[in-house]
Formats: sequence, C-alpha cells, structure tokens
Amino acid sequence: MAVNHITRRFVHQLFLKPLDIAAIEDAKRGLIDFVAVTNCGKEDAGVHKLLQLACGGTSKVIGHPIYTTPEQAALINGFMAHALDFDDVHHELRGHPSAVLLPTLFALCDEDTTGIRFIQAYAIGVEAMAKLALSLSNVHYEKGWHNTSTIGIVGAAIAGAYLIGLTVHDTCRTIGFATTMASGMRIHFGTETKPLHAGIAAKHAIEAIRFAQVGMHVNDNSLEGYIGFLSLYGENTPKKAEALLLDVTSATWRISSPGLWFKLYPCCSGSYFGIDAAQQIGPLAVEEIEDIHITFSHYSDAALVIREPKTGEEGRFSIEYIVSLILANRPLHLASFLPEPIDDTVQQYMKKVRRSNDLEAVSKYTQIDIRLKNGTQLSARGINPKGAPSNPLTTVELENKLTSATEQADTIIATIRALNSSKVSSLLQLI
Amino acid sequence: MAVNHITRRFVHQLFLKPLDIAAIEDAKRGLIDFVAVTNCGKEDAGVHKLLQLACGGTSKVIGHPIYTTPEQAALINGFMAHALDFDDVHHELRGHPSAVLLPTLFALCDEDTTGIRFIQAYAIGVEAMAKLALSLSNVHYEKGWHNTSTIGIVGAAIAGAYLIGLTVHDTCRTIGFATTMASGMRIHFGTETKPLHAGIAAKHAIEAIRFAQVGMHVNDNSLEGYIGFLSLYGENTPKKAEALLLDVTSATWRISSPGLWFKLYPCCSGSYFGIDAAQQIGPLAVEEIEDIHITFSHYSDAALVIREPKTGEEGRFSIEYIVSLILANRPLHLASFLPEPIDDTVQQYMKKVRRSNDLEAVSKYTQIDIRLKNGTQLSARGINPKGAPSNPLTTVELENKLTSATEQADTIIATIRALNSSKVSSLLQLI
Repeated sequence: MAVNHITRRFVHQLFLKPLDIAAIEDAKRGLIDFVAVTNCGKEDAGVHKLLQLACGGTSKVIGHPIYTTPEQAALINGFMAHALDFDDVHHELRGHPSAVLLPTLFALCDEDTTGIRFIQAYAIGVEAMAKLALSLSNVHYEKGWHNTSTIGIVGAAIAGAYLIGLTVHDTCRTIGFATTMASGMRIHFGTETKPLHAGIAAKHAIEAIRFAQVGMHVNDNSLEGYIGFLSLYGENTPKKAEALLLDVTSATWRISSPGLWFKLYPCCSGSYFGIDAAQQIGPLAVEEIEDIHITFSHYSDAALVIREPKTGEEGRFSIEYIVSLILANRPLHLASFLPEPIDDTVQQYMKKVRRSNDLEAVSKYTQIDIRLKNGTQLSARGINPKGAPSNPLTTVELENKLTSATEQADTIIATIRALNSSKVSSLLQLI
Repeated sequence: MAVNHITRRFVHQLFLKPLDIAAIEDAKRGLIDFVAVTNCGKEDAGVHKLLQLACGGTSKVIGHPIYTTPEQAALINGFMAHALDFDDVHHELRGHPSAVLLPTLFALCDEDTTGIRFIQAYAIGVEAMAKLALSLSNVHYEKGWHNTSTIGIVGAAIAGAYLIGLTVHDTCRTIGFATTMASGMRIHFGTETKPLHAGIAAKHAIEAIRFAQVGMHVNDNSLEGYIGFLSLYGENTPKKAEALLLDVTSATWRISSPGLWFKLYPCCSGSYFGIDAAQQIGPLAVEEIEDIHITFSHYSDAALVIREPKTGEEGRFSIEYIVSLILANRPLHLASFLPEPIDDTVQQYMKKVRRSNDLEAVSKYTQIDIRLKNGTQLSARGINPKGAPSNPLTTVELENKLTSATEQADTIIATIRALNSSKVSSLLQLI
C-alpha cells in the first residue's frame, strides 16, 4: 500500500520549500485581514453561544478578555473568523484557508514562537490546502463536502505540526489523525454551522496533533491508495490524485500565486462575480424592471443556497438579495447583513430575479441580463471582481478594513509588519 | 429540500418505539459484555497514552481512579472498549455499536439517570446505527469508511439526546452536528487508531449534543436529499436510502434481532467464520501440510488487513495468524494477541496460507481447504460461528467473560440485572 509513501513526499515538499519575500508579505496581508474580520465578528451571536462551552486555560479568545484551552480557543476563533463570511478565500481550495489555519496556529503558539516561523507555518498551511483541493478535484465540493472543513483540518494539522517543530514522520502521523477526522457537509450552508465548520476543523486539527504527541499508533500514509484520503474523499484515481498532489511545476507559494482573495463585502464569495456585474449596471428604479436574469458559469452558485431570504443575515448567501441591494443603491456594508427583516423595496427587486447555469462555460463568470419594461436590455458580465488576486484590494483598502474594525489598527499593522523579527506574542496580546 | 423531513420522521420512529422485555434483557447482556471488555482493555498502552490528555472533571474513566470531562471520558472509555477488538458486533452495522454508545451514554449520566432510560437510550442507539448502515448500503464500508465511527457518532448522538431528554426538534439539530462531524477511515485498521475511532465518535457525539444545547443554528434535516448524509456517505439514491431508513417492517428491536454478537476471542470479527472452519478441522502438524487455502465470501476479509503480522497484536487482524494458532493447537486467549513476536512454529503455518474471495457467494462464509503432503484434502466451511446471534454465548459463557476480567463480577452482574428499577450511578461506581 505504502510503496511510494505519498504522504511523506508531500510533507517533505512542503517543509523544504524556501520561504520568499512575496510569501512573507502576502502572509502579513492575510494576518491584517484576519484581525479585521475576527474583530468584525467578535460579537456575533454564535460566538456568545460557543463561549458557554469554554473552560479555563491559557489560550486567547480574540476580542474578548477570555482565556481557554487551545482546542476551545481554536473553535471559537475559527467560528469568529468566518462568522460574517468576510474572511479570505483561495480559489484553488474553493474555501477559506485563514479561518482554519490562523486560529489553529495562534492556539499552538507559546511565548517563544517567532513571527517568521509562524509566517512559514501559515504559508505551508495554505499551500497544503490548495494542493489537497486540486488533488481531490472539484467534484469533492460539488458532491456536498465543505472544503474549508474537510481539507482545512488537514492543512491546519500540517501547519500546526510545522509550527511546533514535529518531525516529518510525526507530521505524517498527524495527517493520519487529521484525515480520519475530516468532515463537514455543505448542507449546512446558510446556518451558523458553516462558520462553525472552520472552528471545528481548527479544533480537531489540534486534537490530531495531540494524538501524535502522546504517541498513538496510526497509518502514517493515509493520503495514498484506494482507501486513502485522496480516493475516499475525491473522485480521481489514486494515481492521478497523487500526481496532482506532488506536482511541483509552480515554484511560487500558493499564498502569493494565485493568492488569497480579500473581501470588501461581508457576503459569500460565490456572489462576487455577480456583484462585479451588478455594479457595472448600477442602480435602477424597480418600477422600470421587467425581469433580472442571472447566469452562473457551471455550478458557481453552489454556495448561494438561499433564494428567498427573510433577513439580511440569510441574504449573505443569496445572489437575489445581494444583486437587489446594488440595483436599489444600498450599500454592501455589515449593516446590510444583520439578522433583521429585508425591507419591502429590496424584496420587490428580489422577486424579479431568476437564475440559470451555463454548464458549457470555459471560464468562471456571472452574467446579469435585465429586461426593462420599455424593452431595453441591459447586460453585464462579472469576470474580475474586486478582491480577486487579479483585482486586489490596495494596501489602503486592506488597512481601512482593519481601521473600521478596531481602534488599535495602527498598532496592530505596525506589529504585523515587524513580525519577521519578533515573537507572535507581541501580536496576540493586541487582538 | 426538506419536504418530507426524513430526519424528524426517523427520530419519531426511534423515540416512540415501545421498549420490550427482550430488548431490556439483550441490553443487559450488552452491558455485561461491555464491562468485561473494558476491564480487559483498561491497561492497554493506548489507554495510558490517552490519559495524558485528560484534564479534571466529574466523568469516570472505567477501571481507573480518574475523573475527567465527559468528552475525554467518552474518548478514553471508547478506546478502551474497542482496544482488544473483544467487544460486541452488529452485522447490520458491520461495526461495533456498544464501544461508541455506552461510553457516550455513561459520560452523559448524572446522579438521577434511571437504568430504564439508559437501557432505552442504548436500544435506540443500536437501532439507529443499524438502520443508518442499511440505508448507506454495504458500499459505504467497502469504499473505506469505518462504520463504527462514521455511523457511530450519529447513533451515539441520537442515543445521548434521548438520554438527556432533548426534544425531537433538538435531536434533529444534534443529528445535524453529528453528521457534519462523521468521519473515520478503514485505512487505519491494524493500528491503535481503529479503537481510537470508537472513542473519537463517542467524544464528538457529546460535542454535537453540546452545540445543540447552546443553541447553535444548523440544518435539522441533514440526512435527506442529494447533499445530505445518506447520499454523501452512501451509494444509494436519496429516495432509496430514505425508504430503507424509514422501513418499519420489523417490530422487534435490532438489539434483539438480529442482535449483538458477543465474542469469545479477542480478535477481529472478520476472522470468526474462519475460526469456525478451522476449529472443525482441528490441530494438524505443520510438517504434514502442503498448503492452506482460505476463501472468503465477497470481501468479508476487508477488516483482516494484516497478512504478515510480526506480533500477536498485529495478528488480531490477520486470518493467517488466527487460523495458524488453531491448527497449531494454541489458545485464542488474550495472551495470544499481545504486542510480542510471533514464534517460529506459528510462522511456519502462516507461510502456507493463501486467500481468495468468492464474489458470487449468496451468503456469508469462510471456507478452509488444506492440502496435506500425503495428498489428503481437508475442507471445512464456517457458517455459524460461536458468538453470532444464531449461535450465541450462553449466559454462563457471557458471565465467565466478566468473571475472568474482574473480581467484582458477581456484584456487577447483580447490579446490571437490577437496573430496570435503579439508577445508573449504582453501576458506574462499580466499573
């Protein structure tokens, strides 16, 4: 079964890849974004529910004067990071890497953890998740798995193992425990269990590390072969999956290329191409509109599970709501996505929307076609939304995201910028 | 998606089924067996590793003067129960129900929990697991999932929810959390991670209950539809899977019919049909044997993953080792399955064994054909092994299993027999 030991080759590749300046800078951008979104999410109702489960410890809950066990801190911080769907996205992962990775890594830090090791662990985690996702293939997501969670636990376990200095052998063992706890179903999209998946993956990644640390026996090559992780959770043959996993044609780090998406709007990334299209059309009086037709390439609306939202919070996963906000000239701010009823005006727009899928598409897009009552046809295609690596947030925009979330933004940014030559504790005490 | 609300109908069926005397008696047999096997496993090396992870609490670790959190107690007791593969089996589940259910239920008991409620929760758990397994189909196991864990977490969450009095609605929510944490890969068979899966499932079942109790939002119909649990983890169409789940043609409880298997030997249940066959042939001098051919119906050797064991512990999952023990006139006692080297004599027998699979078989069996050097052919077919519900352990045999495991056997048996009209705490303080 373990002739080639795919798992060990994968870990070797990850751990031996030399860190470069671009990856360091992109990791710092990821950290700024993470602190922004966790601060925006820190008072979410779900955070307060989870705090009831926290018992004593020394690991910090972000934005609260509360310390708990590493596992519980990872759970709560992971939930918090993804609560508003305002956190970063990696399109190869088709999910949210930092909401799993950073809560895991912060929970595993001690007083001595250096910033540069933390950054490398973070880059390794993003790299691992993206490569695992490519290896599992898109079918993994489409069948109903939630990549952020299923793949997240494995990436976070690898990143955490690197951070605390486990050997390659013990990292392979950690992967054994992580893969055998990998879970998370998309059927929960649109509920608090979607962000909870990020927290559960982070928590269980730490549990995987603990099992390795106490020396439990496990198959240390759990990625390989017909009943290994890549086959059981994916659709490729083992040979193809393993080849994709070990492909080394890209010398750059995946945290830089294709890189992380940072969001300007706290709503599902599946809506971003549609936002791009709707913003090209701009506001329109509802009385003028006959109908609104939204076309998605392939099943790129798979995460937009809510078609008739009742509240702004539900609307976070509804293209009908999000496009209607733009046409009604409403902002895509946090206030638009609260658990409050959607007003009549926006609902009038929503009633005119219908969706379809273009399964023949050769690249990802969302197209909006609006027929006006006077016969005019307005069309726009979103192909390069704001936040995507090809249309990134500027440094000012990213820093403004943090500034609007916390009064300590300047100090936090300076601390993150200085992280190459300092300890992670300097950052942890600020967030 | 939730037109029929399959999950709610399933829970209603389980919770409203009237308990009968046969189920009560069979649950008590299950409890006697569980106490026996946990006591046999209490000093397993893995238990001591896991005890390093335990922190303070009020939940009992079986066989040790240690109390920890309910989650940790469930983890350690679940591991302990399955450590020697000496615990019960349910063939519809194709796994080990009690090693997940009872650690979960014990960890959720308080001073007031009555024995009769505990017994009903246990019967509900076995019922739920067997029905979920039938619904997922045999392909679930064959693809590489470990049913004890993937299905175990869901059954244990339902049983636990019943035990503590959650409503049907909150039980459906609990199932949402349990299904989205369901995991466990067969690739770890033959390592400590196999029994660890029982502990992880028990622990995560309690976490699922906690998420429900603090009011996290979740899809409460997670079994249903194309991206629901039954489809994602199974191979049947949703319609067929749901029909199998809700089938009510059997009025008896599945803890009674087909019932639990109790083991006389601490080795993988996949070997039991082969043990039956080998015992029919009896001891043979190794010098007389030319070769030993073992044929399994279908893939009924899937769990017997080790073909060349080095130690008795590895031999627990090796038909080559187990059949060789019988032919060499060695006992199938605990001492034969310790982490010690296999001696030369037994190895000589093992070298003569080859396996094959009869994919056309109409019922389950294991056949042994031995060709002697003098040309004689000896053949036997195992179809009704000792321990199977059709060839059950007698009450004396079951009680002897406990007597050989603990000096307190008589008191424990009397306490279990009286459980209808007493509290579970009376039993918990003895084990």
